[in-house]
Amino acid sequence: MTPTDPPHIAYLGPSGTFTEQAVVQLGGAATEATGSPAPFASVEGALDAVRSGRARSAVVPFENSVEGSVSATLDALIHGPALHIVREVHVAVQFALMVRPGTAEAQLRRLATHPHAEAQTRQWLAGRLPLCDVLPESSTARAAEGVAAGTYDAAIAAPLAATRHGLQILAPDVADRPGAVTRFVQLQLPGSLPPPTGADTTTLVAFIRHNHPGALLALLEQFAVRGVDLSRLESRPTGEALGQYCFAIDADAHVSEPRMAEVLTGLHRTCAQVLFLGSYPRADGRVSVRPPEAADTAYEQAQAWLDGLRCPPGAQPSS
Amino acid sequence: MTPTDPPHIAYLGPSGTFTEQAVVQLGGAATEATGSPAPFASVEGALDAVRSGRARSAVVPFENSVEGSVSATLDALIHGPALHIVREVHVAVQFALMVRPGTAEAQLRRLATHPHAEAQTRQWLAGRLPLCDVLPESSTARAAEGVAAGTYDAAIAAPLAATRHGLQILAPDVADRPGAVTRFVQLQLPGSLPPPTGADTTTLVAFIRHNHPGALLALLEQFAVRGVDLSRLESRPTGEALGQYCFAIDADAHVSEPRMAEVLTGLHRTCAQVLFLGSYPRADGRVSVRPPEAADTAYEQAQAWLDGLRCPPGAQPSS
Amino acid sequence: MTPTDPPHIAYLGPSGTFTEQAVVQLGGAATEATGSPAPFASVEGALDAVRSGRARSAVVPFENSVEGSVSATLDALIHGPALHIVREVHVAVQFALMVRPGTAEAQLRRLATHPHAEAQTRQWLAGRLPLCDVLPESSTARAAEGVAAGTYDAAIAAPLAATRHGLQILAPDVADRPGAVTRFVQLQLPGSLPPPTGADTTTLVAFIRHNHPGALLALLEQFAVRGVDLSRLESRPTGEALGQYCFAIDADAHVSEPRMAEVLTGLHRTCAQVLFLGSYPRADGRVSVRPPEAADTAYEQAQAWLDGLRCPPGAQPSS
Amino acid sequence: MTPTDPPHIAYLGPSGTFTEQAVVQLGGAATEATGSPAPFASVEGALDAVRSGRARSAVVPFENSVEGSVSATLDALIHGPALHIVREVHVAVQFALMVRPGTAEAQLRRLATHPHAEAQTRQWLAGRLPLCDVLPESSTARAAEGVAAGTYDAAIAAPLAATRHGLQILAPDVADRPGAVTRFVQLQLPGSLPPPTGADTTTLVAFIRHNHPGALLALLEQFAVRGVDLSRLESRPTGEALGQYCFAIDADAHVSEPRMAEVLTGLHRTCAQVLFLGSYPRADGRVSVRPPEAADTAYEQAQAWLDGLRCPPGAQPSS
Repeated sequence: MTPTDPPHIAYLGPSGTFTEQAVVQLGGAATEATGSPAPFASVEGALDAVRSGRARSAVVPFENSVEGSVSATLDALIHGPALHIVREVHVAVQFALMVRPGTAEAQLRRLATHPHAEAQTRQWLAGRLPLCDVLPESSTARAAEGVAAGTYDAAIAAPLAATRHGLQILAPDVADRPGAVTRFVQLQLPGSLPPPTGADTTTLVAFIRHNHPGALLALLEQFAVRGVDLSRLESRPTGEALGQYCFAIDADAHVSEPRMAEVLTGLHRTCAQVLFLGSYPRADGRVSVRPPEAADTAYEQAQAWLDGLRCPPGAQPSS
Repeated sequence: MTPTDPPHIAYLGPSGTFTEQAVVQLGGAATEATGSPAPFASVEGALDAVRSGRARSAVVPFENSVEGSVSATLDALIHGPALHIVREVHVAVQFALMVRPGTAEAQLRRLATHPHAEAQTRQWLAGRLPLCDVLPESSTARAAEGVAAGTYDAAIAAPLAATRHGLQILAPDVADRPGAVTRFVQLQLPGSLPPPTGADTTTLVAFIRHNHPGALLALLEQFAVRGVDLSRLESRPTGEALGQYCFAIDADAHVSEPRMAEVLTGLHRTCAQVLFLGSYPRADGRVSVRPPEAADTAYEQAQAWLDGLRCPPGAQPSS
Repeated sequence: MTPTDPPHIAYLGPSGTFTEQAVVQLGGAATEATGSPAPFASVEGALDAVRSGRARSAVVPFENSVEGSVSATLDALIHGPALHIVREVHVAVQFALMVRPGTAEAQLRRLATHPHAEAQTRQWLAGRLPLCDVLPESSTARAAEGVAAGTYDAAIAAPLAATRHGLQILAPDVADRPGAVTRFVQLQLPGSLPPPTGADTTTLVAFIRHNHPGALLALLEQFAVRGVDLSRLESRPTGEALGQYCFAIDADAHVSEPRMAEVLTGLHRTCAQVLFLGSYPRADGRVSVRPPEAADTAYEQAQAWLDGLRCPPGAQPSS
Repeated sequence: MTPTDPPHIAYLGPSGTFTEQAVVQLGGAATEATGSPAPFASVEGALDAVRSGRARSAVVPFENSVEGSVSATLDALIHGPALHIVREVHVAVQFALMVRPGTAEAQLRRLATHPHAEAQTRQWLAGRLPLCDVLPESSTARAAEGVAAGTYDAAIAAPLAATRHGLQILAPDVADRPGAVTRFVQLQLPGSLPPPTGADTTTLVAFIRHNHPGALLALLEQFAVRGVDLSRLESRPTGEALGQYCFAIDADAHVSEPRMAEVLTGLHRTCAQVLFLGSYPRADGRVSVRPPEAADTAYEQAQAWLDGLRCPPGAQPSS
């Protein structure tokens, strides 16, 4: 990092959420050279900081194993100037029930949390705190802050928030479905791509042409015929009308591989629009399945054969 | 309706939301015979009222043209005892900015709304009311109620809520994307299906088998090979792990048609699980495309031909 | 076999060819009860004997591992009244070079054979008998007969023909590609089908609709989507114009299996025409691959599930 | 043509057949500069003349609208050194019944023809000349020669043969199916390809990998996914065992088009073997269907887009 680089990471704040934890896992904690990571009030704000050069990269939530794609992130990436994912990290989502020190569980009447956290802890709350009102807040960290300030009796938030606000954890692992994971991504302006590692993901958003039955089938065949597996396919309304979708896709290959390049040009030819959101190493390190006919060497040999057909040895090129 | 039928419709409350408007559009307004539609605090609550016999049907939101599937509804249908959709209705989502009579726009500092409404009006609010804090509430109707009570300065809610709470509308049509529509469905216990009309939808949730690349391609081919178009395909995390989805599907055919029956048995054979959520008339009345080879008569003629092959005229059935 | 049954097998003659050997392998040798198998001058003649009731069954060549489908048989089945294959047998095609006893190889100048045999022995003849004229005859047996009569010096024919005509075999196994096999079928009037054995073939001819790009792809998907493998797919011109084909197909399943029944009705709906030529045990006894989702029980369970959806328990059928 | 070029065309003889007529239609009649076209006794012989430099090109039959592929031609192309088709021509197959002048139809007892001609006139002969023996000859021209020599009473041959041998035509258009057409091709050593015209064919032979169910489906998808139509797909036994085929394919595109190039490399990667037999103008001048997404410009734009992704403007290429 040179002295002229913007010094910090922008992330979806406030501090004390799982996004800050993702920043830490990504090695983005404050140093003298880089300054502190800066929280932003919205995904859009964090991304715009990168687009305008005020931050070198942004860390935002991308997908949750229970709730699916984070629509605010996907929409901000779709509708704004291009950014590319350069890294990803998985963070285990472990909510905690937290109160001011000394508050007894039986006293709880007003509990605050973010609606997404509420969605993942609804049954637990109904079973354990049936008499407690659940109030929505704009983030789990704000809910914790509100407990500290006396506005609420309790919050469902990340354990980090208890530390920040001096709260006591009554229940450390609150979840309707244990094992929830959120995937966070680090985004930069388009530039040199992370080199292929053999265990890479390429992330795309494809808009199929309207009124074309079988269009999704055709889209999937673009991958199948080149031997590229998908690890994620999520529909997302385009917002224009009921039944109009785009598809957020993670493919198990790097854009520098010929098979992935051919998929991308195939999509570009046949879709209404394709957004490339980056090629980067998988957080879980799972090596891509690559059948022999989809290997780089298979592509190279096929190209050499084709070149020979088009201009056989000894032939004089037509002039 | 006989005297012993449960008298009312259960719906996702509180009153004064778009769901209540859907009940009205469905002809479910209170009458002497049926009593008043009853609001419930959650989708789950409204559905359980039907399952337990306390309501004859439930009306809940199912899909929004901007936000996609309503995950609370889909999850409640997936995880609870079977209910079938018998009707659907589309409601134009027109939010209004409402205040206590006499409040000037320049005075607004604290605005409340439901997070879903906030997602659909975010840009409008940032442009028109940049200084106003946006606070989440558990429903748009509760936000309006809070304005009447003086807790908030303004609310983004359905126009109906202004009428209920004596509020004044400052801006009648607040939306980042005009033309947003929400689709509501009416659900009953499994029983006689609505008869086919030629313009029908069959709604399903399909769980593909794990670790089977190409499984979604195979699922789509089940429809294509029988000439059944899809009007909706939405992925939904199963909640088990990142990358595990089920698919919510609307197909343009009625289960009483042989082509749809063959699709359903094909899915039952090849998927890990298939949930049938009903066959019912389309709200928009669009007639299904039915290629000649997918017509009921094509199926009947093919079956007659097959029967003749298996036991040709004059042949003695093997005993 | 009752006394009123026609007593014999019709086969493509003359005697002394591989077809007669196929009759023997099928257990069709002459007995007191059945009389002698009767040779016919053409495939059409043998089939017509069955169609007119003068023979109970016909044995004709169907496919050769070197030359492909026997077009005379396929055309006669396509254009005449329906007959069904009830058995098949594979016969190793071992041609022999035969002469009148005492003729030396160096003396051979005029060699006769059938054009199909010539096609399978062309390179051998060019290498071993480069000075010998090769003259076409209407059957290999007729060529052998011509050698006995002094018309030709030598014949390429089935070993059986040497025995019949008192010829001497100079080279016992004449073939450009060793291991050639011809598949013969036994045909009857439509009637009770051979019962399924688990190692069965269903033979079809499908005419795809004209001017429908992707029609062959669609035809193949009819099989793939029901888990039925193909062991043979051969194009055959329909004779109407260049580029117009029908497809002769062997599928690895019996028409009594639900998966094969569904394939057949699917083809009947989508093809211009489908000819069913029988379901019968494979000569090689190879057991069909049947994935779990294509098993009879998978079809039965899917049908029971569908029946429950269409008329749920407790529902009153609509009247 | 320079003085050192071999001066003539090799063709499947003898003279007086439809192949000679194809040579004439291709403008290959004798001139002072080129010398006379030379008949060869076999397809293999004509092709070897080109391979060894004794002829500049060869004209041989390739496909017949009634009988399908000419297996001798296909086999000779598959098993020998590479040759490329550079032109094709369609010849209407009109057989004539010919006799020595003065012979009455009622006197005919011995008729000769080639087995392929016999196959196309079988029903006509059975109806018109039921008492006449049909004897096979090695070519229709040889049959006509035999009539002139008194060996046979009549021949079924090309009208050209009657002129050559002073025979009288008793029936000018003998055919079971009127309108039969044979397609002939002109072959050269690999060299500069004929330039694309917009109405081109690329001819291939593809060998799919053994024991791979669905392999033909996958092969067809290679074409479908790139928007290339097929005008011919013919199976051909490989000769190794029953059920082992290769596929002779005519595709409606020229190898210089990116869509066809991508199909070819796709086949090269996924098939056991692919033979390229040439790209050349269609005889019927039918312009290829080219959907917008398969146009050269669509490929070029997609490639430019991909290049931009891999090395975004301003990015320093990794070194």
